[in-house]
Amino acid sequence: MTTNNPATPATPERPGQPSAAAAKASAPRRQNPRPYHRGRRKPTVKPGLPLRIVSLGGLNEIGKNITAYECGDDIVIVDCGLAFPDSDMLGVDLVIPDVTWLVKNKDRIRGVVLTHGHEDHIGALPYVLKQVNMPLYGTELTLALVEGKLKEHGLTGKVKLHVVKPGDTVKLGCMTVEFINVNHSIAGSVALAINTPGGLFVQTGDFKIDCTPIHGEMIDLARFGELGKEGVTGLLMDSTNAERPGYTLSERKVGEALNTLFAKAEGKRLIIATFASNVHRVQQIVDYAQKYGRHVAVSGRSMVNVCGIAAELGYLRVPEGLVVDIDEIDRFPKEKMVIVTTGSQGEAMSALYRMAYSDHRKVVVGPDDFVIISANPIPGNEKTVDRVVNELMRLGAEVVYEEVHVSGHARQEELKIIMSLCKPTYFIPVHGEYKHLMKNASLARSIGIPDKNIIITDIGKVMEFDKGNFKFVGTVPAGRVLVDGTGVGDVGSIVLRDRKHLAQDGLIVVVATIDGASGALVAGPDIVSRGFVYVRESESLMEQTRLTARDVLMDCADAHVTEWGTIKSRVKDALSKLLYERTKRSPMILPVIMEV
Amino acid sequence: MTTNNPATPATPERPGQPSAAAAKASAPRRQNPRPYHRGRRKPTVKPGLPLRIVSLGGLNEIGKNITAYECGDDIVIVDCGLAFPDSDMLGVDLVIPDVTWLVKNKDRIRGVVLTHGHEDHIGALPYVLKQVNMPLYGTELTLALVEGKLKEHGLTGKVKLHVVKPGDTVKLGCMTVEFINVNHSIAGSVALAINTPGGLFVQTGDFKIDCTPIHGEMIDLARFGELGKEGVTGLLMDSTNAERPGYTLSERKVGEALNTLFAKAEGKRLIIATFASNVHRVQQIVDYAQKYGRHVAVSGRSMVNVCGIAAELGYLRVPEGLVVDIDEIDRFPKEKMVIVTTGSQGEAMSALYRMAYSDHRKVVVGPDDFVIISANPIPGNEKTVDRVVNELMRLGAEVVYEEVHVSGHARQEELKIIMSLCKPTYFIPVHGEYKHLMKNASLARSIGIPDKNIIITDIGKVMEFDKGNFKFVGTVPAGRVLVDGTGVGDVGSIVLRDRKHLAQDGLIVVVATIDGASGALVAGPDIVSRGFVYVRESESLMEQTRLTARDVLMDCADAHVTEWGTIKSRVKDALSKLLYERTKRSPMILPVIMEV
Repeated sequence: MTTNNPATPATPERPGQPSAAAAKASAPRRQNPRPYHRGRRKPTVKPGLPLRIVSLGGLNEIGKNITAYECGDDIVIVDCGLAFPDSDMLGVDLVIPDVTWLVKNKDRIRGVVLTHGHEDHIGALPYVLKQVNMPLYGTELTLALVEGKLKEHGLTGKVKLHVVKPGDTVKLGCMTVEFINVNHSIAGSVALAINTPGGLFVQTGDFKIDCTPIHGEMIDLARFGELGKEGVTGLLMDSTNAERPGYTLSERKVGEALNTLFAKAEGKRLIIATFASNVHRVQQIVDYAQKYGRHVAVSGRSMVNVCGIAAELGYLRVPEGLVVDIDEIDRFPKEKMVIVTTGSQGEAMSALYRMAYSDHRKVVVGPDDFVIISANPIPGNEKTVDRVVNELMRLGAEVVYEEVHVSGHARQEELKIIMSLCKPTYFIPVHGEYKHLMKNASLARSIGIPDKNIIITDIGKVMEFDKGNFKFVGTVPAGRVLVDGTGVGDVGSIVLRDRKHLAQDGLIVVVATIDGASGALVAGPDIVSRGFVYVRESESLMEQTRLTARDVLMDCADAHVTEWGTIKSRVKDALSKLLYERTKRSPMILPVIMEV
Repeated sequence: MTTNNPATPATPERPGQPSAAAAKASAPRRQNPRPYHRGRRKPTVKPGLPLRIVSLGGLNEIGKNITAYECGDDIVIVDCGLAFPDSDMLGVDLVIPDVTWLVKNKDRIRGVVLTHGHEDHIGALPYVLKQVNMPLYGTELTLALVEGKLKEHGLTGKVKLHVVKPGDTVKLGCMTVEFINVNHSIAGSVALAINTPGGLFVQTGDFKIDCTPIHGEMIDLARFGELGKEGVTGLLMDSTNAERPGYTLSERKVGEALNTLFAKAEGKRLIIATFASNVHRVQQIVDYAQKYGRHVAVSGRSMVNVCGIAAELGYLRVPEGLVVDIDEIDRFPKEKMVIVTTGSQGEAMSALYRMAYSDHRKVVVGPDDFVIISANPIPGNEKTVDRVVNELMRLGAEVVYEEVHVSGHARQEELKIIMSLCKPTYFIPVHGEYKHLMKNASLARSIGIPDKNIIITDIGKVMEFDKGNFKFVGTVPAGRVLVDGTGVGDVGSIVLRDRKHLAQDGLIVVVATIDGASGALVAGPDIVSRGFVYVRESESLMEQTRLTARDVLMDCADAHVTEWGTIKSRVKDALSKLLYERTKRSPMILPVIMEV
């Protein structure tokens, strides 16, 4: 991780430029940007054509956000994220959107604009870009994170990347996209004002209102107000925290909590787990480490990665000499150390998880450690976080895991402020499950947007805006594609169904060899079971299973049944019945017949 | 569900007696109770022998609570609960404690005393009683719920059941057990004062302090105080909510919320999901139904079951004619109906789940419905609850799912009150994960209990109290037994490991027939896969797998390798390598060799 000379601190508006050598060595190779404008004078957009908007992900779900704006012969995509698998998507690594429609219309796509660098907004890019290559537009940090992904997938240099800053406007076909500064739990987040012949649309991306941000400026509320005065046709708004009343607290509030905990942790080593992407949080940790005279080490691949990029680009200001390599931590007294680590969601194999299970190659947790989990469990992760907390406590560490975090998403009052500033004709809640969308819709109603102008849509449903009027105009293919290992889309519902069956009650394989001519049983049946019962204790059941299968096969032979499908069916039925009666379980039964 | 005549309401202290006919028809067959005392004058306990306490479940976990008190030649068991499987216990129905030690010492067990009727306190009884039959002591509702379980397991009439009331004391060997009224989220809950030659112990069971309980009296704080003055050696205390500051609100607070919602739901049908065991909640729903002129129908097997028992025993007071059968609801206008239902945790196949997925045989949810989920998600269930909420909203119902519940477990201030009243020499936090136990321990420290007198123990660890001194004295077998279908304990770590493997990446079965004498390949290999890839799209991969397997088998034949173990190993290794290289997945590979 490179460090900036504190004498020339990076100014908030323009992240510090890397040194020439560093720039040459590590700066991403970027094309000359397409002509675009900085500042408020924007290229004009000729009105007239209808605008269509369709989301291919991110509605009625949290994750895989991707929305297409289509006007005339041009398509602009906003974001391209992944989703994490549900608990019933056994063995699946991640979920990406079905982009059949994009592939079909690839010649009309003018570019992808990215609101920020979270996985649910950029994570599907490597997979989608392999299907349809498109130029990308995003802030510096966002594109740096994208480049890391492209590299992992062997796409370095094959995709055009255009760096933008808040205030810039880019012309994409008959539409323009203006980037507007917002606050979120990752730096470099923007909202978009998409000006089209069919109207002016504002897409908030993920945002909150933070009056005291750690880096950069407060969300550009004035610009939302100006747009509202110009006339916003449609507002697509983040619904994640629409159920929560009040305001989301500023990121600096976490700083206050950290300050108290740093003081409390005097004499102990600090281990702080947080989201790798939350550079602002890491900045505060670094600042307090300096204040309290501690060194900082970083653990966890994604944390090392993101912090490195952030420091290089100037989003993270680190005093020289403060950071030490994780391999060198034993050279320093524990009470002078802070370890910043991944694993705030209790993820298996994260650095904190390995520490909790005494499996980390450098960090051995004990009573001299004070652990802070600076994150809230994402819904679904509560038990995995609990497990790690319990294990760390067993090792003797003091663990603080509550109230050292604030959300990155706006709550009800903030949402209403943006709605009121934009004063849109149409309100389209996005980025949420159905209940979130409904709640956001009710907020819009509460500030006076008429019910008929509030659009609850779904992925694949095409919205058309024409001369101030709206209607749904059909659907396009949309859905999920499961990624497992290197396979994309080859794990579908049948494979999942089978995995579920195997997971529930295991498997019985029945193998027999029969004579091809006569159908007589030549060898077997042999029974092999996995995941069903502990065989050593269930020998009589296994033997009874074998005998039952044998009876069926011999009956088939006697009756001259040679159609394999029929034979297998009968074996399956007989064994299912037997095993259910005996065990009330239904293992998968797989008859395999060899012919000699 | 039988109803009581409102003219003679059941008094809180003594639940109404069923009519003679009903009593004869349905009253549980109970033995004449062992001699026991009502009121404050208790049989004396001769001091002298050391007392040993060991928990076989309920420590460092939530669930399967069971504790044994051993003094001289006598053992008394407190509770016998089950736990629900973790997400990694694939296909497992429930988890019960390993009671090897109880079976070994069965001749010394004088009885099981039950604190209340929740599954994590009584759910393992049918399984354990089959291994060691013991007399049971509990309040009327608790034993009625136990009887339902015994009936399901064919144990009716085979177990001695003794009904007790708060204030009663039972002599069990050299120990006495006094039952003390407490408040909890199920009626008939008690704490225990266990007087032994080795000291007086108080076990709180699950409790809260409710100054305005719906049924029965407030927790008998005075009695805890009296015991504290007599001298409590050890206090075993519920740690579930030890992390939560303040007080748990009274059950009546939910009533206030319900009142508001009943008013808001005017003109719509009400559907209210809550825990079947929370009779107090159902009572309030019944009361408001009457107030607002609605009928009540009940849906869900456990809800019908528990409400029926509760009404029969007088824990639930229902005005005559208020309740209608679920099959009759169409005879009444929707706005005059409240349906009380199971499914507050989003459990698959519960009544509310079936309603949400349009699969309920009587209830079709739509915009005329107002659904209330009167429960908080138990940690781990957040996403299942969300799913049901989203589906119900999609059907057009209004859904309220937050803040219509209070916990049944004491928070920090209540815990400290009981600690202060009891003034125990030793404090033993129970009923919680490690973090809960640690937090409860820190509360004890905060009110002055010395650190050396605070005992964090674990299942299987034996605590000995002798003349005011404490030490650990070894361990007994303790752990978990998995129940799957009718099988108890035959799903162990190997079976689970296999299920996990199958769930992750599926399975490849490789079947070949070889000549027994020469080792030559006679038929096959055939490849069958399940849960791995969608075969139709992966034919070339499957073919390559088959060819690789064939090459290995032929090589083995050529090299005269006839040892099946070796042949299978080589096939497994070759295929694992191939498949991982091609797919980055590791399906289970099952070679099966038939010999002719």
